[in-house]
Amino acid sequence: MKFCSECGHAVETRVPDGDHLPRSVCPACGTVHYQNPKIVVGCVPEHEGRILICRRAIEPRRGYWTFPAGFMENGETLQAAAARECWEEALARVEIGSLLAVVNVVHAHQVHVMFRARMTGPEFGIGPESLESTLVRPEDLPWPEIAFPSIEFALRRWLDDRGRGVEQHHFADFDRGAARRPA
Amino acid sequence: MKFCSECGHAVETRVPDGDHLPRSVCPACGTVHYQNPKIVVGCVPEHEGRILICRRAIEPRRGYWTFPAGFMENGETLQAAAARECWEEALARVEIGSLLAVVNVVHAHQVHVMFRARMTGPEFGIGPESLESTLVRPEDLPWPEIAFPSIEFALRRWLDDRGRGVEQHHFADFDRGAARRPA
Repeated sequence: MKFCSECGHAVETRVPDGDHLPRSVCPACGTVHYQNPKIVVGCVPEHEGRILICRRAIEPRRGYWTFPAGFMENGETLQAAAARECWEEALARVEIGSLLAVVNVVHAHQVHVMFRARMTGPEFGIGPESLESTLVRPEDLPWPEIAFPSIEFALRRWLDDRGRGVEQHHFADFDRGAARRPA
Repeated sequence: MKFCSECGHAVETRVPDGDHLPRSVCPACGTVHYQNPKIVVGCVPEHEGRILICRRAIEPRRGYWTFPAGFMENGETLQAAAARECWEEALARVEIGSLLAVVNVVHAHQVHVMFRARMTGPEFGIGPESLESTLVRPEDLPWPEIAFPSIEFALRRWLDDRGRGVEQHHFADFDRGAARRPA
């Protein structure tokens, strides 16, 4: 941030009174501009034992596979955002289920929240941000071509839990690409 | 947002190409400014069966009670943020435990994430954003003076789970003050 979004004046970087971190502060109107982590929300859509995944048409990681996920918007719930992303990326309707994974992606200033989901029918397609979509058997997941560590983490926990007949939630931290998973 | 934070030009509100929602777009440099929900993170610190709560010294809801909670910062995990807020507001050190509640506060463009926590000792104090702090027995919680619906929701679930000897996580949605809790 270089300019104040309220008055257009150039901002300074300093620790505001009573604060403990440097912020972008406008010397003209006094506005303090906070920058906070963004929420990426997604779901693992299941239909008759298969998982719906999409190949990304956009950067980063164009050409790699993911389940539907994206930035949460103002005015929606986590669950509504997860269902919307599934519709946008794979033209599939889902019922959002239990919480699967919460991943602190520290270096990217993101928290990823992933749910289990059930497709309401067999229909799916290819949204504008996808190159292709497919329903895969879990044993056919393209592990070397999964787009992001948080997506791989969630898929592996999904599989583990399914094998054990449970639906737990799982935390992980990723920082500069190094996985640190709490015990 | 009135001005572009990258170049200082006045922004326009329009739906960018390939998008589906109106955004603040700069007609001079082309930057699209997204606005997304913020994460508020907190914990219910327990010590020998009592809960640490603070009376707010700042608006909104100055004078009302809450457990330590606040905005997550870039560069930290949810768990680290929850522990930091506890230190800042109540000068207490905690070990963050299991996930307690995830609350979609839709009208405020916030997601609140609350954890259980255990104080590492009996010490606590009064941080600059608190008027007082106290360790209360659960039966003495000041329900009519709890600051926010999400805080009350988390405390009630904490109590219910404790009575049943479990540690589950709970979702709730609040929109314009009306509670809608998924079954």
